[in-house]
Amino acid sequence: MNYAVLSLLAAAVSVGYGLYLIAKTMKLPTGTPTQNAIADAISEGAKAFLTREYQTLGLIAVVITALLWYAMGSTYGIAFLVGALCSAVAGAIGMNTAVRANIRTAVAAKHGLAAALSVAFAGGAVTGLLVAGLALASVAGTYLWLQGQGITDIRPLIALGFGGSLISVFARLGGGIYTKGADVGTDLVGKIEQGIPEDDPRNPGVIADLVGDNVGDDAGMAADLFETYVVTAVAAMILGSLTLPGNTAVLMFPLLVGSIGIVASIVGTYFVKLGSNKKIMPALYKGLIAACVLSAVALFPITQALFSSLNLFWAGLLGIIVTGVMVVITEYFTSKQYGPIRGLAAAANTGHGTSIIAGLALSMKSTLMPVLVIAGATLVSYNLAGLYGVAVAAMSMLSLTGIVVAIDAFGPITDNAGGIAEMTNQPEDVRKVTDSLDAVGNTTKAVTKGYAIASAGLAALVLFASYTQELRSQALTFALSDPSVVVGLFIGAALPYVFGALAMEAVGKAAQAVVVEVRRQFKTIKGIMEGKSKPEYGKAVDIVTRAALKEMVLPALLPVGVPIIVGFILGAQALGGLLMGTITTGLFVGLSMTTGGAAWDNAKKYIEEGHYGGKGSPAHQAAVTGDTVGDPYKDTAGPAINPMIKVTNIVALLIAGFLR
Amino acid sequence: MNYAVLSLLAAAVSVGYGLYLIAKTMKLPTGTPTQNAIADAISEGAKAFLTREYQTLGLIAVVITALLWYAMGSTYGIAFLVGALCSAVAGAIGMNTAVRANIRTAVAAKHGLAAALSVAFAGGAVTGLLVAGLALASVAGTYLWLQGQGITDIRPLIALGFGGSLISVFARLGGGIYTKGADVGTDLVGKIEQGIPEDDPRNPGVIADLVGDNVGDDAGMAADLFETYVVTAVAAMILGSLTLPGNTAVLMFPLLVGSIGIVASIVGTYFVKLGSNKKIMPALYKGLIAACVLSAVALFPITQALFSSLNLFWAGLLGIIVTGVMVVITEYFTSKQYGPIRGLAAAANTGHGTSIIAGLALSMKSTLMPVLVIAGATLVSYNLAGLYGVAVAAMSMLSLTGIVVAIDAFGPITDNAGGIAEMTNQPEDVRKVTDSLDAVGNTTKAVTKGYAIASAGLAALVLFASYTQELRSQALTFALSDPSVVVGLFIGAALPYVFGALAMEAVGKAAQAVVVEVRRQFKTIKGIMEGKSKPEYGKAVDIVTRAALKEMVLPALLPVGVPIIVGFILGAQALGGLLMGTITTGLFVGLSMTTGGAAWDNAKKYIEEGHYGGKGSPAHQAAVTGDTVGDPYKDTAGPAINPMIKVTNIVALLIAGFLR
Repeated sequence: MNYAVLSLLAAAVSVGYGLYLIAKTMKLPTGTPTQNAIADAISEGAKAFLTREYQTLGLIAVVITALLWYAMGSTYGIAFLVGALCSAVAGAIGMNTAVRANIRTAVAAKHGLAAALSVAFAGGAVTGLLVAGLALASVAGTYLWLQGQGITDIRPLIALGFGGSLISVFARLGGGIYTKGADVGTDLVGKIEQGIPEDDPRNPGVIADLVGDNVGDDAGMAADLFETYVVTAVAAMILGSLTLPGNTAVLMFPLLVGSIGIVASIVGTYFVKLGSNKKIMPALYKGLIAACVLSAVALFPITQALFSSLNLFWAGLLGIIVTGVMVVITEYFTSKQYGPIRGLAAAANTGHGTSIIAGLALSMKSTLMPVLVIAGATLVSYNLAGLYGVAVAAMSMLSLTGIVVAIDAFGPITDNAGGIAEMTNQPEDVRKVTDSLDAVGNTTKAVTKGYAIASAGLAALVLFASYTQELRSQALTFALSDPSVVVGLFIGAALPYVFGALAMEAVGKAAQAVVVEVRRQFKTIKGIMEGKSKPEYGKAVDIVTRAALKEMVLPALLPVGVPIIVGFILGAQALGGLLMGTITTGLFVGLSMTTGGAAWDNAKKYIEEGHYGGKGSPAHQAAVTGDTVGDPYKDTAGPAINPMIKVTNIVALLIAGFLR
Repeated sequence: MNYAVLSLLAAAVSVGYGLYLIAKTMKLPTGTPTQNAIADAISEGAKAFLTREYQTLGLIAVVITALLWYAMGSTYGIAFLVGALCSAVAGAIGMNTAVRANIRTAVAAKHGLAAALSVAFAGGAVTGLLVAGLALASVAGTYLWLQGQGITDIRPLIALGFGGSLISVFARLGGGIYTKGADVGTDLVGKIEQGIPEDDPRNPGVIADLVGDNVGDDAGMAADLFETYVVTAVAAMILGSLTLPGNTAVLMFPLLVGSIGIVASIVGTYFVKLGSNKKIMPALYKGLIAACVLSAVALFPITQALFSSLNLFWAGLLGIIVTGVMVVITEYFTSKQYGPIRGLAAAANTGHGTSIIAGLALSMKSTLMPVLVIAGATLVSYNLAGLYGVAVAAMSMLSLTGIVVAIDAFGPITDNAGGIAEMTNQPEDVRKVTDSLDAVGNTTKAVTKGYAIASAGLAALVLFASYTQELRSQALTFALSDPSVVVGLFIGAALPYVFGALAMEAVGKAAQAVVVEVRRQFKTIKGIMEGKSKPEYGKAVDIVTRAALKEMVLPALLPVGVPIIVGFILGAQALGGLLMGTITTGLFVGLSMTTGGAAWDNAKKYIEEGHYGGKGSPAHQAAVTGDTVGDPYKDTAGPAINPMIKVTNIVALLIAGFLR
């Protein structure tokens, strides 16, 4: 039996179930005309951004397709295009559902927390199921297509991964710059200069801000995990075929692990139900835990059937365990219940400076445990089953993408639902429901970002292993005692630093553009502050769209261009060093930024609950400064590091055949 | 002729000239009783701190000496003790001179800029000459002692380096925590809560703050560069003896390079003279340039006499060029004249948050060029003369320590002179002189920190090379495709992050202790604010001393303990990975922190010159927040990374013989 066909089937179930959830969500009521007007404005803004982003990307994709086709043959060109298209489709459909689920969540909130949770989670699940389904389908489908053509070399799959990668780095950067440019810019004028609350309909930037959550946390995250999934599956298959040639089981196992994860994720969604204690986060975790347990249970007989030893089962189990441990670690550093956030809030009480110093220290310290977990998992899985064992651990971690992205994409929906409720003056009890959902959305966003960077790290290590295996015939050792490896290592280590700096600066520039526009509207449109005339939301959306698309190009090209230049000028050895350098500092920069940013955010929320004088107190102002710094950390630069690490590695793997 | 004897002679000249400068400085007038009272308080505080620090260190040193003696023999134990003692002596004498030169500078300021500059620079030169002289003397002397004992194995020199290393990491941390704990704590209560200016005699923490500059920038920097000098010379000699065994020229060349640098530094001090344009920085640079040119010129005939090829001359020249390039790069990112600082000041104009975001982006971006310079120098010098070539480049860079430390130690003297002038209400024209000297002191501190971290990076690479050579018989490859190397790399990369976080938190804790004490004095001692009663300066000094010494221990033990644990549990391969991981992220964390911190400091000064509303404006407040964050960045965590990188490597080199 051809297991790839089976995987295609599992992927189809995932996509089909996602489409079913869309249909179900669309049937729900959409509320008053005022609410609809806002939801439509968000949805139009999001669509306008994605359309323009895809136009830019389309142009770049066509050029790269042509280059690949010419240099490496038609299969590479086609595979690249398939990867890019599937990623784009998953992001687009997911986000379009999210911007429709938001208003339905706000409306369902009238019927209580359980109803609103169910709508918001179903909306998020669409993105999760489409990402996992299309990712698995694209790998299995391309593999079958190659088989059908009688091509036994599976390397064109690398081009498939590169297609996903390219979309991913642009989507993360573009979405991240958009969301934080809009957020920071809108708040600077609205909250600080005009003294009006967040999500106030009088603020001309408010729609852009609400759009931002969708393009960043939904479309951006979708593209990121689509890519991680595809490159991990591809790298696992390639590693399997290189280290154990001719063994079909080794080639098919990653696809089967993916299939198990998808089915487990779908079943897991049914476990997301509010318990008697009415706590939302445990409800979401129930779904994740169910998916983990199911995956682990199903993995056992399948490993037994395919292999004589259970070592690959243990490696797979390790990937699932890493997922759980990463969630626990991220929660510890970003939840208001534990020491780190409370210490940070206390530091805010002595001023802006100490708030930042404590947050930076927290962000740096928070890297240790995740990195040790990744290192430990690598070592154990390697000892279990060699490089292929590491690949299986990574694949099993990624197989949970469906449920994890569902939990993440829940965030922007609840955020928007809260915004719509706020802007349309909903009654207190409705606002309470949307607010509590929104608060949880912040935690889920932090937790899934921890998962995303850890899985990106593991995936990149697997890609790096594939790169070294690919060059095995040249007997390169990538020894640290070789100066060219060290030079490569240093250049690679510099990449996340420069990339992160450019991303942070881009947010600053986009925010500046928003500030200018919002100030202009407050000044020239009479009666805005009195609520007598409507601001021109569309203008602000348009400006931030343009700024984000302009600013994303330079940093996005870094991880594509630098490995090519280093590879061809300094050679394969230096490029190997570069890859490991990028993975190393990338992990630290990414982890510290995403955790640190979430920590500042929640320290602010902790103070807003009434500690250290609550809202408006000096401690709160210092915490707001921390949050402002945390914004580009956690939503732009930090998460954009993930695709950046992987793009660097996949480009290297792609050009490995040409290097000496 | 024995070149080691010649080096000992050069070292003696340096120390002798330093002592002559002390005698000359001591003869200068010391001003009014009021001024003397302040200067005495500073000097007592500094001495009290150093005494207590050395007591703690003495205890640790005795334990380690005993351990080394027992495990590796008496020569190791003795060499370790010599290294520790010489470093301590250089720091102590240098700092004791600085705390006497400060008042003499303030008094000389009455006679104009040229007079004050000459006193301050002579005071700083004492530290520089003693550091370089004692470092060279300890290496050459220990080498001669080993020869005298008939011991041909030069490995006990590693213990000498370790002695310097241990003092260095404690001195950098203890000094750094002290200086910024006192600075931040004193400012928080004085400037912000009580609204009195900096260096106001009514502030109970003001003496502690002035003491801090000496223990941080003088004693700390002295220990740091003493260590870098010794470990580089030792590693170069060991690399020479391992890669080209039996070649005496190779063994002696590093000592000769050091001798040249020392003589060139002494001559260089004579070129530090105010030009007709009355600009201070160019006067200092003249000294540096003279020393560089002289070194380069003298290097040529000596290389020609010892070796058949000139390749080692080019490698040495490269080290001198790296020194110059690092100065230029650091100046670009931290001088008020160029784009980066002006952009940072503009960002402060839109608030606290944007001030921090822009500063963080700047700090991250500023790492690229220095790292490329270090990588390039490594590659070129390796191609010129192998690993030994890299060592010679590093040694030639370090040979300029004398003049570089002189320029750096000038900083705390001028800072203190300014403080004394301020506290004793000196006339406008005196204050103008001390202020302009103080402003330059800020730049020199930034520039020499760039030199310190770059030379630490090169030194660490040379140490790493010695480690790999030492394990050569085991035919280890330290290949990046080996998971245990990767795991080591990750653990090593985590070290600077955790270390930096602990250092930043330590500053917070020390500052908190100062805040409590200063608040107590303002509250309980009647008439402080009216200037009727004197604050208890000594109490504040005592409290920050205790806090700094307590907080320095844990982070300082990290780079000693972790390599031992990893080496014996995960093995020599993983330890190799760890070393490179620590060097890599250490360079980035160190560079970004020292440059970023100086940038915030100078952006604040730029605004204080009247831009964006000048002092007291919202832009200024935001810049002050940036400066507060920059303080522990540039004066505690950042510079402490230097010794931390080297300690890790020297510990590994020391235990290499026991590893498998």
